Amino acid sequence: MSERRGRSGGRAARQAARAARLADDVPFLTRRLAPFEILAEEGLELIEHNADTILEEIGIEVTDHPTALRLFAGAGADVDGTRVRFPRGLVRSIITATTPSVYTQHARNPARSVEIGGASTVFAPAYGSPFVRDAEGGRRYATIADFRNFVKLAYASPAIHHSGGTVCEPVDEPVTTRHLDMIDAHIRYSDKPFMGSVTAGSRAEDTVEMARIAFGGDLAGRTVITSLINASSPLTWDGTMLAAAEVYARHQQASIFTPFILAGAMAPVTPAAVCTQVLAESMVGIAFSQLVNPGAPAVLGAFVSTIDMQSGAPTFGTPETALVMYAVAALARRLDVPFRTGGHLCASKVADAQAAYESAAVMQPTMLAGTNFVLHAAGWLEGGLTMGYEKFVLDADQLGAYAKIADGLDLSENGQGMSAFRENEPGVHFLGTQHTLENFEAAFWKSSLADANSYEQWAEEGSKDANTRATARWQSMLAQYEQPPLDDAIAAELADYVARRKADLPESEY
Amino acid sequence: MSERRGRSGGRAARQAARAARLADDVPFLTRRLAPFEILAEEGLELIEHNADTILEEIGIEVTDHPTALRLFAGAGADVDGTRVRFPRGLVRSIITATTPSVYTQHARNPARSVEIGGASTVFAPAYGSPFVRDAEGGRRYATIADFRNFVKLAYASPAIHHSGGTVCEPVDEPVTTRHLDMIDAHIRYSDKPFMGSVTAGSRAEDTVEMARIAFGGDLAGRTVITSLINASSPLTWDGTMLAAAEVYARHQQASIFTPFILAGAMAPVTPAAVCTQVLAESMVGIAFSQLVNPGAPAVLGAFVSTIDMQSGAPTFGTPETALVMYAVAALARRLDVPFRTGGHLCASKVADAQAAYESAAVMQPTMLAGTNFVLHAAGWLEGGLTMGYEKFVLDADQLGAYAKIADGLDLSENGQGMSAFRENEPGVHFLGTQHTLENFEAAFWKSSLADANSYEQWAEEGSKDANTRATARWQSMLAQYEQPPLDDAIAAELADYVARRKADLPESEY
Repeated sequence: MSERRGRSGGRAARQAARAARLADDVPFLTRRLAPFEILAEEGLELIEHNADTILEEIGIEVTDHPTALRLFAGAGADVDGTRVRFPRGLVRSIITATTPSVYTQHARNPARSVEIGGASTVFAPAYGSPFVRDAEGGRRYATIADFRNFVKLAYASPAIHHSGGTVCEPVDEPVTTRHLDMIDAHIRYSDKPFMGSVTAGSRAEDTVEMARIAFGGDLAGRTVITSLINASSPLTWDGTMLAAAEVYARHQQASIFTPFILAGAMAPVTPAAVCTQVLAESMVGIAFSQLVNPGAPAVLGAFVSTIDMQSGAPTFGTPETALVMYAVAALARRLDVPFRTGGHLCASKVADAQAAYESAAVMQPTMLAGTNFVLHAAGWLEGGLTMGYEKFVLDADQLGAYAKIADGLDLSENGQGMSAFRENEPGVHFLGTQHTLENFEAAFWKSSLADANSYEQWAEEGSKDANTRATARWQSMLAQYEQPPLDDAIAAELADYVARRKADLPESEY
Repeated sequence: MSERRGRSGGRAARQAARAARLADDVPFLTRRLAPFEILAEEGLELIEHNADTILEEIGIEVTDHPTALRLFAGAGADVDGTRVRFPRGLVRSIITATTPSVYTQHARNPARSVEIGGASTVFAPAYGSPFVRDAEGGRRYATIADFRNFVKLAYASPAIHHSGGTVCEPVDEPVTTRHLDMIDAHIRYSDKPFMGSVTAGSRAEDTVEMARIAFGGDLAGRTVITSLINASSPLTWDGTMLAAAEVYARHQQASIFTPFILAGAMAPVTPAAVCTQVLAESMVGIAFSQLVNPGAPAVLGAFVSTIDMQSGAPTFGTPETALVMYAVAALARRLDVPFRTGGHLCASKVADAQAAYESAAVMQPTMLAGTNFVLHAAGWLEGGLTMGYEKFVLDADQLGAYAKIADGLDLSENGQGMSAFRENEPGVHFLGTQHTLENFEAAFWKSSLADANSYEQWAEEGSKDANTRATARWQSMLAQYEQPPLDDAIAAELADYVARRKADLPESEY
């Protein structure tokens, strides 16, 4: 019997080892660990009730988008100028009727397609920084070369599942055509899924057209773009963002409807009130997408941080933010829609202990909350103003650990490891036991950037801190980067589309 | 009605503000947030069953402590030489019969007394490093001057509740008398609770005697010492540690029975097996204390980390460790005994991004698991070989945030903040609303070391990273340190006791 147990343990261990070797290559995480719930049912109901009270009594401003006003009125909302008030329960019923609880975002390499919603978690790079920073060049305006570098780094990072969107603002390209270069870079330098332009309806149309080319001319109803649609909190949806969302919904592409909140400024200072506002605002965004095209994929988003009440400066990694993330994740589960929050956020200007402490204080609850789509999972510095090369690889390294967290505690016979105790005398180390040998490869996540060597060895190797090691890492990743295959005809058609649109569009001021 | 709501909100807000002002001065945290449970009842039962199997089949080695063997045999264990095997359920029944679920560790300043167990969480400095490090002096052997510095820093850190024990090894003092200088420093330079010597029974007796002096000559049955009793994992309790634990238990002083495990070496490589071993080992330690003196306070401890399976180097902040901590915390709750784990642990040699990422990856689960006593909450570097001055203040700063996490989400009327929404139009910031003004002081934890200023301001102030700011912080804390009052007669009696014992004890090699 013990022999049979041994063999069975051995097989399980070999499977675990294979799984571990492959873990870095999975296109997204599948959580077996249940999310951390910080509120009981009645607490969540209270917040839902309050969100409905806001939608009914105060309503939402919808500016510069007559179609949205018409759609909301048609669905039963009370539209008074640009103010839209919703009878209690209306928004929820629109959402739950048709919003998918999970959807597949197809990548041009099918092995990279991701599921967004349910038990899945997808990591994407930071988004929107006008500046970049690296240890040698310091802080400077981002360029399209930087943009392409970060697309390449995300492609080369096994724990990053998604190419992201505006990984940095290529400010050397004209505002009117910048989106073309960004989408082109995502398609050309990566085969992971990506995000689309949201700065105008026409740019969303360009995104869809370029995606169509990348996917061989026909999307065939597939969702291949997930884009970031921000509310103008408090309680306002702006016409520009809604125009982009409308284009995406019409084409069956996904939008993440995200209140962008620094609590104290764009929302009240108390976390429960922040949860209420996030729910009210994001629900209206999702409902809009369903009115445009019932069944279009939509994500409930929550970008939430805080401010320093003395200076007004944005602060990150604060405990209040963590509490909001846990609660809003639970509210999204009750709506049965995918949820986005968090990332490795910080206020720090450099990739130092402050950056890591703040980032971890956002990322840990992001993961434990059961978040489905994690934007800003790597690179974020300085409240999002700067995309850091060193920060990017340090964050990406940390993301690898979350695959093991997502797995939860293995209670299989191999996991219980009773054979190890039976084999080993008290006082004897387990390094040589059969159970250890069988589980050797799968045992323990190992950072690829942390230094666990002795002090003496570390000193001999130059006493390099994490930031210094990170510089070497991103440089070697870029040096070793190999472009994923792209059909020549598709590449040519893409280039032609970009050239044609650039000729059509006026060059704006930079 | 809205006026009444307003007044009521105002009162609640003022109470919240007062609470926030006082939060840094609370002697310990009281968690309102329920712990994160990662295993269902049947998973926990499985681990308990396996632990009982280990205790029954394999047993525990108890070396160099005939009294322990006699006590275990008398309680019904099967003692074969130094191997002790326990009938299923015996150890648990000994523990649950008499071990307090929570106890007060009295401080010589009663306002600093801590509760250990239940919903309380107590933070104590790192323990046991032979080296110290600061940015200017680099890494060097610790001295009694360093020891006193760290006692002073812990005393001056509002989020650190406990003075700890061997905050660093004062290697300039003889081994035989070092404990006298350490206990003297804890009593003299702080009025927070402290830990005792565990390196010999006689040194534990010295600790009790010195505590007796500090408390005015009579402990009157009070618990005033909590000490760290480590198992010699795997499955071995050593006579030296048990001798100290015996002294403490006899005097109604507390011990933390802690397997010290680097999984893969001192335990199997799979997390569930580690949980099983930790439970088996620590239960035997606690049972020993109850056999010595039924009702003596005892804590279930779990020092768990991992190794790099290639090099054998200890690794910290790994996800497997987090999973073990969550599970063992739940097992301790089922035993209804206080629980110790975690801290701000890392392998990093300096207080860089690696140090912070690793430390946060241990400390976050430590807190969410519902840990009662957190040793190593500040200062730890390099796998515990070095106590860092900069690391200490960076960690201590982070600890402040956990008070807000412990509070959970406030769902009071003030917390819901509906008055803020009613007062504020969509699109208008909340900075000036009544609700914000009422909650201004209590709103948002603010790091005292993080820099949230603009890049320009940060650059103007010298582009200081967190480590550089931390140097200035600990230096100014030491410069501003003021010794807490100590009765002259007590101080003299303490000095006399130390002098007398030093004369009695042989000077060992250093």
